[in-house]
Amino acid sequence: MEEEKIIKWLKSHCLPERKEVQIGIGDDAAVINLNKTHYLLLTTDAVVENVHFKIDQASFYQIGWKALGVNISDIAAMGGSPLWALVSIGIPQKIVSAYREIYRGIRDMAKLFNVDIIGGNLSRSEILFVDIFLAGTVKKKNLVLRSTAKPEDILFVTGQLGGSQKKKQFEFIPRVKEAQTIISHIKPTAMIDLSDGLAADAKKLAEASGCGFEIEISKIPVSQDASEKNRISSALYDGEDYELLMAISPKSVSRVPASINGVPLTEIGKLTKKKVFVLKHTNGSTNKISKEKFRHFE
Amino acid sequence: MEEEKIIKWLKSHCLPERKEVQIGIGDDAAVINLNKTHYLLLTTDAVVENVHFKIDQASFYQIGWKALGVNISDIAAMGGSPLWALVSIGIPQKIVSAYREIYRGIRDMAKLFNVDIIGGNLSRSEILFVDIFLAGTVKKKNLVLRSTAKPEDILFVTGQLGGSQKKKQFEFIPRVKEAQTIISHIKPTAMIDLSDGLAADAKKLAEASGCGFEIEISKIPVSQDASEKNRISSALYDGEDYELLMAISPKSVSRVPASINGVPLTEIGKLTKKKVFVLKHTNGSTNKISKEKFRHFE
Repeated sequence: MEEEKIIKWLKSHCLPERKEVQIGIGDDAAVINLNKTHYLLLTTDAVVENVHFKIDQASFYQIGWKALGVNISDIAAMGGSPLWALVSIGIPQKIVSAYREIYRGIRDMAKLFNVDIIGGNLSRSEILFVDIFLAGTVKKKNLVLRSTAKPEDILFVTGQLGGSQKKKQFEFIPRVKEAQTIISHIKPTAMIDLSDGLAADAKKLAEASGCGFEIEISKIPVSQDASEKNRISSALYDGEDYELLMAISPKSVSRVPASINGVPLTEIGKLTKKKVFVLKHTNGSTNKISKEKFRHFE
Repeated sequence: MEEEKIIKWLKSHCLPERKEVQIGIGDDAAVINLNKTHYLLLTTDAVVENVHFKIDQASFYQIGWKALGVNISDIAAMGGSPLWALVSIGIPQKIVSAYREIYRGIRDMAKLFNVDIIGGNLSRSEILFVDIFLAGTVKKKNLVLRSTAKPEDILFVTGQLGGSQKKKQFEFIPRVKEAQTIISHIKPTAMIDLSDGLAADAKKLAEASGCGFEIEISKIPVSQDASEKNRISSALYDGEDYELLMAISPKSVSRVPASINGVPLTEIGKLTKKKVFVLKHTNGSTNKISKEKFRHFE
């Protein structure tokens, strides 16, 4: 599935026509003009059996937790606060009673962020999927897009990356508060959440902003859970970290705190005018990220 | 799958806590207090392969058309106007290019009602599902719930019922304009859209309103597409009609028009204080609808 091609097609075939729609397909969430002070944010993401989880490798509770978490992470990446969730579950007849455990996971995640579950649809299905629709709001002045960074902006990530398939994908806390705290100090010029892996998501932010990037390998904060064999590859390509990648104007960099709520913020590189995606090694050598590496996530 | 039991569980375990949430799980759409004049309506419904359609019996275009249509029908049943849709598709690798035809159906339905498609998520999946989240608005004075009818209110349906599996399920036009027209004339005391069949949906409206019902068999407007063998059963139980069932106060009944935009409005019975669900035959005999008949839809 060539995700990039599909998203390009969707964007060009679903151009918003209503005047209140500020941003349709293409960012972490859609943006609707709500009133003088606030935008409405709307997003959807699904977790699907045998694609996002195996039923014998994740508990139903974890599946529910993750399904809402990935959506909250999208709202966080826009600078917003999640508010209302609608849950659509497709579930095989033989495990139908598992909906209670799935909901227990969803509800525990919802409680963390004062999200109300206001809609619930349950369909029979031959495979389990949990599809969540999440609405939130953001003060207009706090909205951060992925498309508004500039060359020379500095890239920061929250937390540690890599090996998240082990357990973090089912235990992560979306970075809502961290995003809002950084915005209240220094508003990033762009932001995206890390779901497909640093390399792929940095490319999305850079391309949406009309830039390239240069990431310094040695600066990437690698998680203890990252693959021991190839720790850097794990941090770049594993995905499912649900941390934030943000671009900060060079003039503001000195004011970026080392951590927020105990979550470290790490400078890892910068955006470039030249639209290439470069990894810089400690010995000064560089290599461009090949298209094939990205395709791993498509 | 005991749908009633599940919805009861969901309602009791997902009680809204946020003050702006007027109605959570349990009606055709959730209701959020948006501003002084309007409510926001949010709904979700999925169509799933081998449950709602067979891939060799419906075109991808029809699947897309239906997937958005069933959601617009929910917004119609609240008296609202649909505005913004987010589309989540799970699709097997071998038919991935079908997303274009699915979207063509979604977009044609969207255009009919000036709906913008503002979010699109595509996941791999072993079966095809199209899950849509739809937001709309309604003037506060025009909101109609399913739970606010009273005993002796008269029941009306739009259009004809039965046999909708043949083709209507893939061709129906949701009754948005008809709902708004009737509301501007005589506001129904309650309304619901007919997705599971007249018998099941009338029971939902009656139960939500704390009533029973008495439906006169001979008055049901039966579609030409209804099963020839048992036309009444077809109209009562087939489902997928996407017409509206509304309750009208007895004092307003004389002002109900015979049709709206060429769509007939037919009186079919009334709500009762006694909480039983009765079918009245022309010879005066009656029978209660058995629980088993409803379970057909669960």
